[in-house]
Amino acid sequence: MKPFDHASADAARERQDILTKPPGSLGRLEELAIFMAGWQGRAVPVLNRAQAVVFAGNHGIVAQGVNPFPQQVTALMVDNFRTGGAAINQLCKVAGAHLSVVPLDLDRPTGDFTQGPAMAEAEVAAAMETGASAVDADADVLLLGEMGIGNSTVAAVQAAAVLGGTGADWVGPGTGANSEEMDNKRRAVDEGLARHQGGGTTAVLSAFGGREQAAICGAILRARELNLPVILDGFICTAAAAVLTLDNAEALEHCLIGHQSTEPGHRRMLDALKMSPILSLDMRLGEGSGAAVALMVLRGAIACHADMATFAEAGIG
Amino acid sequence: MKPFDHASADAARERQDILTKPPGSLGRLEELAIFMAGWQGRAVPVLNRAQAVVFAGNHGIVAQGVNPFPQQVTALMVDNFRTGGAAINQLCKVAGAHLSVVPLDLDRPTGDFTQGPAMAEAEVAAAMETGASAVDADADVLLLGEMGIGNSTVAAVQAAAVLGGTGADWVGPGTGANSEEMDNKRRAVDEGLARHQGGGTTAVLSAFGGREQAAICGAILRARELNLPVILDGFICTAAAAVLTLDNAEALEHCLIGHQSTEPGHRRMLDALKMSPILSLDMRLGEGSGAAVALMVLRGAIACHADMATFAEAGIG
Repeated sequence: MKPFDHASADAARERQDILTKPPGSLGRLEELAIFMAGWQGRAVPVLNRAQAVVFAGNHGIVAQGVNPFPQQVTALMVDNFRTGGAAINQLCKVAGAHLSVVPLDLDRPTGDFTQGPAMAEAEVAAAMETGASAVDADADVLLLGEMGIGNSTVAAVQAAAVLGGTGADWVGPGTGANSEEMDNKRRAVDEGLARHQGGGTTAVLSAFGGREQAAICGAILRARELNLPVILDGFICTAAAAVLTLDNAEALEHCLIGHQSTEPGHRRMLDALKMSPILSLDMRLGEGSGAAVALMVLRGAIACHADMATFAEAGIG
Repeated sequence: MKPFDHASADAARERQDILTKPPGSLGRLEELAIFMAGWQGRAVPVLNRAQAVVFAGNHGIVAQGVNPFPQQVTALMVDNFRTGGAAINQLCKVAGAHLSVVPLDLDRPTGDFTQGPAMAEAEVAAAMETGASAVDADADVLLLGEMGIGNSTVAAVQAAAVLGGTGADWVGPGTGANSEEMDNKRRAVDEGLARHQGGGTTAVLSAFGGREQAAICGAILRARELNLPVILDGFICTAAAAVLTLDNAEALEHCLIGHQSTEPGHRRMLDALKMSPILSLDMRLGEGSGAAVALMVLRGAIACHADMATFAEAGIG
């Protein structure tokens, strides 16, 4: 595993300052090009192959009445991803990303974390390995997303376990919980926090689940081994990634946040993680949708960095 | 000229609510699809052909020491646009827009508005006609951008003339003015406001210029005749467009704001116009760059709207 390459990042920064524009005037696009340069270890990063992976799982916590949709919707949405009918399919097409859909044991939901652990530690390891194996080593950037009825409750309890606070701090409407379901979500989170000890990444994933969250963690670790920059999606994806910081405070340094969800906990989470989203478009869909829109911006950033004329080439100054 | 078609917009809104996602979860992308439906007059809007036009002009106000770059840079950047070396070229390529570059009499700058009118009214009319003629009637969306050394001072005085306030309220660093140049910009704006009466669109364009601003106004009016939605760029482009509201408060209803510039007056201007930018990426380049990145988001919005499966098609619910 190579660390962030400061020499390449510095070279990219110097290149930005001689391109035909006022220095700094491309703002976030300049930062993105420099970030990619450092992680790819080349002054002019490339963005030919983009892979988007959507991990899907089911969750025992739905027994607590936390979600308006039945659990079967997870599998139906996986079918929808596979037949090309979901938002993420259209956004990947526009953004030029290859979509991989990885359901994890949908017919075997995790345990209800208010009653016991969501997963055995061996199940956590297996789901992390599934996540790692899904990563395309030839990709230039990796986008991560998720689907799983009930998983905004899992995200809320993970956020509390990693960053502190209670259900009231982290619970939001998710796919559209009504006020009774919101009460159930907050209560479930607080009961889960009371029942389980904290600990490291594996302990928290074991306590609360879920499989798609463990897979996201595995994919992020694998991407780091490959020096592959990652675009995380919204609230649920970020919460899963945050669990990695329990074992390594720098675990997410190769990760970008694609989009700030309207799920209220996301802003709080990003502040705590000191991460700044690329986009804020009032989306709250998950399935990698925010990451896919952010990929379009990243493509613009890399194209400007690679292909703009310098002042000398344009005979200016 | 057809007005916004509420029946098509309503049909688009109803379609959004049956697509396979929680209602409202695509946020701004849903709003953009509905906006396009209303202006195109079809429940499923299309986005095949996108045209970006960059208008360029020169400004007598540079005699007041308002810009660090010499006026020749305007023509050199036009060459750069034509040979494909500028940011807007790369962004149009990524976003799938056809770029038109329209310089307006670069060797004949407008008059210094602290000394007299920038343009005769006949020159305003000619520049507006050039702008109108540049619009591709077969486009599905029009992006507008500008280039012109000194034109952030023109934008500041236009903003003050349309929305009130003084140089101190509207002047920012533009391409990178130092503190002396900033003082010169504020003074120039205040002297311009003192010298010229207000009035309608033509009077303000005549008083302060410039040709690219008048061309932007002409293009916006022509797009409205064509029921063609428009994506405006940043501070300078929005200020030019705002001049149209002097004659018609609803003149910009078919326009989106692509990107909120870091030029400090832009936020103030958007608040006054009650317009909400699609993106905020700390850019401040102009030349249509923010509009081009916003086009990528719009493509995502239209693709989701047109091609997602409905709940019924996916067998959900």
